[in-house]
Amino acid sequence: MNHAVSNEDVLKRVRGILARQPFSALLKTEATRALADGTCEFRISIDDNLMQHMGMVHGGVLGYAADTALTFAAGIVYGAPVITSEFKINFLRPVLGQALIARGHVVYKGRTQTVTRCDLFVVRDGAEKLCATAQGTIVVLAESAGTGV
Amino acid sequence: MNHAVSNEDVLKRVRGILARQPFSALLKTEATRALADGTCEFRISIDDNLMQHMGMVHGGVLGYAADTALTFAAGIVYGAPVITSEFKINFLRPVLGQALIARGHVVYKGRTQTVTRCDLFVVRDGAEKLCATAQGTIVVLAESAGTGV
Amino acid sequence: MNHAVSNEDVLKRVRGILARQPFSALLKTEATRALADGTCEFRISIDDNLMQHMGMVHGGVLGYAADTALTFAAGIVYGAPVITSEFKINFLRPVLGQALIARGHVVYKGRTQTVTRCDLFVVRDGAEKLCATAQGTIVVLAESAGTGV
Amino acid sequence: MNHAVSNEDVLKRVRGILARQPFSALLKTEATRALADGTCEFRISIDDNLMQHMGMVHGGVLGYAADTALTFAAGIVYGAPVITSEFKINFLRPVLGQALIARGHVVYKGRTQTVTRCDLFVVRDGAEKLCATAQGTIVVLAESAGTGV
Repeated sequence: MNHAVSNEDVLKRVRGILARQPFSALLKTEATRALADGTCEFRISIDDNLMQHMGMVHGGVLGYAADTALTFAAGIVYGAPVITSEFKINFLRPVLGQALIARGHVVYKGRTQTVTRCDLFVVRDGAEKLCATAQGTIVVLAESAGTGV
Repeated sequence: MNHAVSNEDVLKRVRGILARQPFSALLKTEATRALADGTCEFRISIDDNLMQHMGMVHGGVLGYAADTALTFAAGIVYGAPVITSEFKINFLRPVLGQALIARGHVVYKGRTQTVTRCDLFVVRDGAEKLCATAQGTIVVLAESAGTGV
Repeated sequence: MNHAVSNEDVLKRVRGILARQPFSALLKTEATRALADGTCEFRISIDDNLMQHMGMVHGGVLGYAADTALTFAAGIVYGAPVITSEFKINFLRPVLGQALIARGHVVYKGRTQTVTRCDLFVVRDGAEKLCATAQGTIVVLAESAGTGV
Repeated sequence: MNHAVSNEDVLKRVRGILARQPFSALLKTEATRALADGTCEFRISIDDNLMQHMGMVHGGVLGYAADTALTFAAGIVYGAPVITSEFKINFLRPVLGQALIARGHVVYKGRTQTVTRCDLFVVRDGAEKLCATAQGTIVVLAESAGTGV
């Protein structure tokens, strides 16, 4: 995809890829927003399957949500298949609520490497609270063209 | 738990906690090793549910596996409830195979904070290959005693 | 310091601490901005001493600048001595220019732990460019009171 | 450099590059060991110039030392100019002593990207203590050949 692509198309493509990810289906992840500049948003309904043993959402779910937003943000701006080189996540508070929202964006886009950031929010009784924040490095695959987001 | 606790008891307790984590059950995680010094090993059978759209294990699964090994390593040495403050993971190669193995250990144990490390291996046709590596910071909950791993 | 403290006082105290850091003097670091909410800015004039072997500013200088802004951001909001638990930095482009600017702010302030972020800019011929970005975890020292920033 | 190069040559080349880094000279860094497999060791004598305001070595010095060992470890195995994409460092204890030792090694070497690790030790009264640990991602420059470590 390039920046001439409409935001509507971007969201459609993000949803297309997400639909082909069995793990994202297992976690009932929904793409709720995606813009050509890399801004993206994903929503995960919190159910009992996602919990750890103290009744809170498992850190692994937050890691998954961060990974998803960090990676799609880069995939969108490159319009090509990307791989996540690494990321770092800080957990800020215990996660209890109805839904998890992951918002990603691009901090810096290089020729082959992008740094992206993601904030995670928990929705509880209608209010959003920041619950984790992540920063990652995403690499565009060299031989990629036209097959991406 | 303290170091007078037998390794057999440590593994039993790790399995007890894991069994009460619905998300770990969803990902069919098995604790295969746990020593009183914080060394621990978890195994996840790779099935279609864990894939992304290109037929490889989703990075979120690796993040979950790393989070699990990093956190249990600290929980074991403190013998008390812990929370993961943050971690960083590097993805080294695409993950294709029959099982994912996460091995955690403690790098440094402070009074309230521990730094742990985790290597992830994919098992394919009987051979193990390093596929990701992580480093994290785990905090012991101040008021905790006797309720941990 | 608490939030009743004026921004003018905050900057004065930041400069006081910086002046007592021989390593910050060696790197000729100047505090150019500090607000009670943790926002802070530091400036380092780039001279030949700060270079690596290819004529660019050494990554260690960027790491130092990030560490400084990440830590002061937290120290300001706690008004107490803090220690940096960890940080992560992404290098975005080679650094060539007249000055390095580090801008820190607080992402989340917990009771004992704060997550802060820092963007580094290089000033070249009057224009600023983002050259690195960092995220860190800062812990307030438990027994601290009144001796901080 | 390739693995046919002797370890003696590796150390000579590492020292040659270090000698051309003004910032490494400013911090009186010495390369004390370098093997063709990427293992490397650097030593920094601790003097008053390296301190923060509480009489301990500044975190920025540790960040510099980690950056140096992480980057050279990769540079050695590639035998070509490299750039550090990112790193993460955990500070484990206050650093007081006579010298800082940084030991780096390669965790995984890919075609264009290497993950390296570094442990930092403080030497005090003849004893070494682990004081920080870091993990980083180093990228080999595409057009490089023969000009590296």
